Amino acid sequence: MSKIKNDLILKVLRGEKTHRAPVWMMRQAGRYLPQYMDLKNKYSFFERCETPELAATITLQPVDILQVDAAILFSDILVVPKAMGLEVQIIENKGPLLPAPIKSVEDLKRITLPDVEDKLHFVMEAIQLCKQQLDGSVPLIGFAGAPWTILCYMVQGKGSKTFDEAKAFCYTNPSLAHHLLQMIADTTIRYLKAQASAGADVLQVFDSWAGLLCKEDFDTFSYPYLLQITQALKDTVPVIIFAKGAWQSLETLAGSGASALGIDWCITPETARSMAGEKIVLQGNLDPVKLLSPIPEIIKETTKMLASFGAQKHIANLGHGILPNVPVDHARAFIDTVKNNIYPSF
Amino acid sequence: MSKIKNDLILKVLRGEKTHRAPVWMMRQAGRYLPQYMDLKNKYSFFERCETPELAATITLQPVDILQVDAAILFSDILVVPKAMGLEVQIIENKGPLLPAPIKSVEDLKRITLPDVEDKLHFVMEAIQLCKQQLDGSVPLIGFAGAPWTILCYMVQGKGSKTFDEAKAFCYTNPSLAHHLLQMIADTTIRYLKAQASAGADVLQVFDSWAGLLCKEDFDTFSYPYLLQITQALKDTVPVIIFAKGAWQSLETLAGSGASALGIDWCITPETARSMAGEKIVLQGNLDPVKLLSPIPEIIKETTKMLASFGAQKHIANLGHGILPNVPVDHARAFIDTVKNNIYPSF
Repeated sequence: MSKIKNDLILKVLRGEKTHRAPVWMMRQAGRYLPQYMDLKNKYSFFERCETPELAATITLQPVDILQVDAAILFSDILVVPKAMGLEVQIIENKGPLLPAPIKSVEDLKRITLPDVEDKLHFVMEAIQLCKQQLDGSVPLIGFAGAPWTILCYMVQGKGSKTFDEAKAFCYTNPSLAHHLLQMIADTTIRYLKAQASAGADVLQVFDSWAGLLCKEDFDTFSYPYLLQITQALKDTVPVIIFAKGAWQSLETLAGSGASALGIDWCITPETARSMAGEKIVLQGNLDPVKLLSPIPEIIKETTKMLASFGAQKHIANLGHGILPNVPVDHARAFIDTVKNNIYPSF
Repeated sequence: MSKIKNDLILKVLRGEKTHRAPVWMMRQAGRYLPQYMDLKNKYSFFERCETPELAATITLQPVDILQVDAAILFSDILVVPKAMGLEVQIIENKGPLLPAPIKSVEDLKRITLPDVEDKLHFVMEAIQLCKQQLDGSVPLIGFAGAPWTILCYMVQGKGSKTFDEAKAFCYTNPSLAHHLLQMIADTTIRYLKAQASAGADVLQVFDSWAGLLCKEDFDTFSYPYLLQITQALKDTVPVIIFAKGAWQSLETLAGSGASALGIDWCITPETARSMAGEKIVLQGNLDPVKLLSPIPEIIKETTKMLASFGAQKHIANLGHGILPNVPVDHARAFIDTVKNNIYPSF
């Protein structure tokens, strides 16, 4: 049993009833917070990620400032390709750059299955520090990118609207793509197991580019690796899969062993529920841009969103990461509205 | 009756049976063609758009080179905000820039309902030239952006992953947003009527950013204006609506009076058909990145796509614009595969 004081999200993920939906926000430890910007202006991206004290401080900021129901580790999905041996640069305010991406079978020789406890020790240390500093107040969510999304960056070498080179790589060299996806999946399983051992209470897998694939390609290049990950982890800690845009595969994903599925705002909660079935927890899905509305609108839209999900089996969140230009009191209005909405049967 | 030799697409849009699906590609007059690149290197974007001889030459290139079943006018959706009085720059290889976007009620004073025959005379002249030069070989498709998509650019002032400022404008000033949307819709109706009068045989409305809106917001800020446009035009020429990503509204859109609905590759043809109903023509939906696959794969995937749509009520196309890095013979493999797939009952 958990010794965590506010274990609302753990209860929901275990299938237990709660008096309201727990709430957190993707990218809640980030650029909309002035306290984060202070650290961003002093330290480079990888300094912030790779210095456990900094990562822990940033992770706890939204817990202190907004009283969210869970902390999510401050880190980046691209620590995995970096640990596998690829150079990863983060160009501030621009995005990632991998100057020597994977294009051929030769390039695969440049990457390895890393010893994650060694290469990513700073993540486990940050998790341990977070757990100490949280002192049982709320659960800590660890995370990793889905193999498909990590492949996108490893092959394309940078952000892209279409990830055309990554997709063309898969269509042209499917066996090479599967070899790479398997290496990423193996690394990710080790990495997430280490996060759980270090103290992460929940794990979220971000498949940010799932929505670029037609259903058949998602079933081919993404889902099998998500399934491996959830199967390897689910008996240790609950897993949340956020496969952004993969609405056509909600039914499939509901059978993956994940405890919850994240959904974006481009599907109604009612449609998502009918596709995913009655059993699984759904997480989401307010359009992040709604937090730029006036506060009364935010309260109205959040209340409407909560009603659409109905009571139980829901973790309130945005449908994607919070935007950097959201005022803190707007984020607070979202969080507080969820907290004020007690389920009718209570 | 049409005097066009290859009137396959017109027949399909009229609900008549054909021996195969007609085929064209969004952005077929564009950067993947070396003949287009020659002109791109000599003339600026607006020179190409606003010089009827150049626009007509570019429009006819894919008809000559690939023998597609329809020409689509070479132009840009942003000629409309330009005609309404906003400065529009196209930064080559980067995208649009509107240096003085609409942010307030004051800014609305800077735009007007233009006399489209005057401000956009070059479009009508290009259409007349195209019709002369096509000499009845294939139909000509005219087009415009949907009011929601045009508002995105008029308010955001440039391309964006989220169009957060445009959406926040709508959420914060809904009455102002509706006023602007109505001005764009009124201009667009005049513009499309003028295109039809000049000789366009079919009109496509591109709602490229429909998929950024949750269903309720699409119903509020996009659909009413699409409906006005189709209702105003449908008795003159058939209208195709391509509301990219608006899969949740296919049923609604099927009742708009449009003759066909475009779909992207992120919905299966079977699901789209079940949502849109049996009556309407569907257009799409091969993932444009598939054209970077080896040719045998392109043939396989195109054949599979055709089978998923089934016989009749289908216009073969990509699920979005053709990418600049597609080899011409790959595009030809797509076109030829469609042409070689005769419906079984024939």
